Amino acid sequence: MSAPDDPQVPVDEFDWIAKGLRPLAADAPEAFGLTDDAAAIPSRPGFDLIVTKDAIVAGVHFLEGDPPAMVARKLLRVNLSDLAAKGATPDGYFLAVAWPAGFGWPERRAFAAGLAADQAEFGLRLFGGDTVATPGPLTASVTMLGWTPAGRMVRRSGARPGDHLLVTGTIGDGWLGLAAARGADLGLDPGQAAWLADRYRLPRPRGVLAEALRAQASAAADVSDGLIADAANIARASDVGLAIDLARLPLSDAAFAWCARRPDVVQSRLALATGGDDYEVVCTAQPGAAARLMAAATALGLPLTDIGEVVPSGGVKVRCGPRVLDVTRTGYRHGASPH
Amino acid sequence: MSAPDDPQVPVDEFDWIAKGLRPLAADAPEAFGLTDDAAAIPSRPGFDLIVTKDAIVAGVHFLEGDPPAMVARKLLRVNLSDLAAKGATPDGYFLAVAWPAGFGWPERRAFAAGLAADQAEFGLRLFGGDTVATPGPLTASVTMLGWTPAGRMVRRSGARPGDHLLVTGTIGDGWLGLAAARGADLGLDPGQAAWLADRYRLPRPRGVLAEALRAQASAAADVSDGLIADAANIARASDVGLAIDLARLPLSDAAFAWCARRPDVVQSRLALATGGDDYEVVCTAQPGAAARLMAAATALGLPLTDIGEVVPSGGVKVRCGPRVLDVTRTGYRHGASPH
Repeated sequence: MSAPDDPQVPVDEFDWIAKGLRPLAADAPEAFGLTDDAAAIPSRPGFDLIVTKDAIVAGVHFLEGDPPAMVARKLLRVNLSDLAAKGATPDGYFLAVAWPAGFGWPERRAFAAGLAADQAEFGLRLFGGDTVATPGPLTASVTMLGWTPAGRMVRRSGARPGDHLLVTGTIGDGWLGLAAARGADLGLDPGQAAWLADRYRLPRPRGVLAEALRAQASAAADVSDGLIADAANIARASDVGLAIDLARLPLSDAAFAWCARRPDVVQSRLALATGGDDYEVVCTAQPGAAARLMAAATALGLPLTDIGEVVPSGGVKVRCGPRVLDVTRTGYRHGASPH
Repeated sequence: MSAPDDPQVPVDEFDWIAKGLRPLAADAPEAFGLTDDAAAIPSRPGFDLIVTKDAIVAGVHFLEGDPPAMVARKLLRVNLSDLAAKGATPDGYFLAVAWPAGFGWPERRAFAAGLAADQAEFGLRLFGGDTVATPGPLTASVTMLGWTPAGRMVRRSGARPGDHLLVTGTIGDGWLGLAAARGADLGLDPGQAAWLADRYRLPRPRGVLAEALRAQASAAADVSDGLIADAANIARASDVGLAIDLARLPLSDAAFAWCARRPDVVQSRLALATGGDDYEVVCTAQPGAAARLMAAATALGLPLTDIGEVVPSGGVKVRCGPRVLDVTRTGYRHGASPH
């Protein structure tokens, strides 16, 4: 890309598409070099197209000062996380970006470089989209397309009593990482704080587990609003109850250290389980399937932890070892900031 | 929908999805009642999925004070216009909206009512999406899905020398309508000014012509950036030249009246042909096919006007009757405001 770097020179959107975005569609015949009004996605007999669409806004879903390349990668990854939870293999995406006035060639180039890096990492192509100007904050949405065999998307609605409740990775790092990225003092050493901030800025979608989820999971969801809230979505869609044990909550070393410095470890674990921004997968599976799923995850090098059971009814019951927590009173939709 | 109308009560996004958006997905089994992480679109053997994604921002693509229902309908229609130009039959859409703080239940309800009205008019279902908050202006994008028989999307790249250049409807009304909506004095009577403002706020996508375009057109594009710019996109993609005669430009009575009051009718017609926001279809067809396309359009009650010819090379040449215009010097990407 050769283009003026002078931030006083407004970016011509046609130039931006030609120089910034077209290379990202080079491997996508579906996109016609971004020179047409639409993309054409050929049907794959025997497959369903799995589609998700997530939007992000500066100051809401990422920090105003976050590097543009990280913002672009986060945008792709929050969408990839949805596909991973559905057992879908990602294919490509449509991008709509509303650029603020100060977002010139250098920032856009960095944004495109972030897209290119994650396209390579996750096997994605750019299919199309729209690029517009805004007087407001940077706002962007991605429509991500993936595939599953027909009828095999892993739904939220398949959990049955007796299933195990499992979650990938570690929980609470995104929530703590947002506080760390904002400069809050979590009482951790600088290395741990930086590690957490990176976890907030750059989710790790769990697509590596997609095939095993299709084979073994009865239900699954992306963990973005908070583990308990997203597990509750599975319970509601499946018309079952859940029993979650926070004593089994998988924690990173940094989150464990944070909990250890707090007066009430149970409330701290509850905060981590309601904080959001995890981009892990929470899923259910019958006992034998759960064992096979754990074996598959182990073989893939991905932690997968059994944190509870599906019960016939009664909503979501949360305990921490022997201690029962009342989450209906405190609510679990929105976590507050850690302190 | 029953919900508090008090603008001081922040809208719970879960309630909004359940009460505002879920009814719009009632006829879409693909959407799982908006209770899952993604939609599943079954493949249709023998068909391509045609996908377009356009975004709009308050103060840029519509006026801040425009009624929310009109904004919602415009958002769907600018996307439907792309599908129409590609010869695709619309099916459903994904919606991402970033709501500003002042956008409470009454405004959102009106927005949803606009979506519902156009879903009924154009045979659409809501497949999914995302709803977020923004400190900036109302920003929204739609990813619109339609279908064509496999390999039959009408491309921009199929124009050949000797083809006729045709355009639907009338040109320049959206551009004049923006000025009218902003309260500019166009020297027209109030009825004409109101008619033009309505044309700006509510495009008329030409999906009725999609099947005939597939059968007869060699190339087509949506007219959104301006007739000459979008025709030039066809010429560039097809590696041909175009000769456009502005004397044949189809004008509404209001646009004709505006031209008649101006000192230079040729420059006025050029302004209309570069203004944008038309959401008509510009297309090319071999002489016999052009005649059949005109007959089909007539039968459908849609004006279709022959405005020029495809030539082997030389870019886009614009004349108005005998007078040749130099559009390369003035540029045609962005029209100024009428006065």
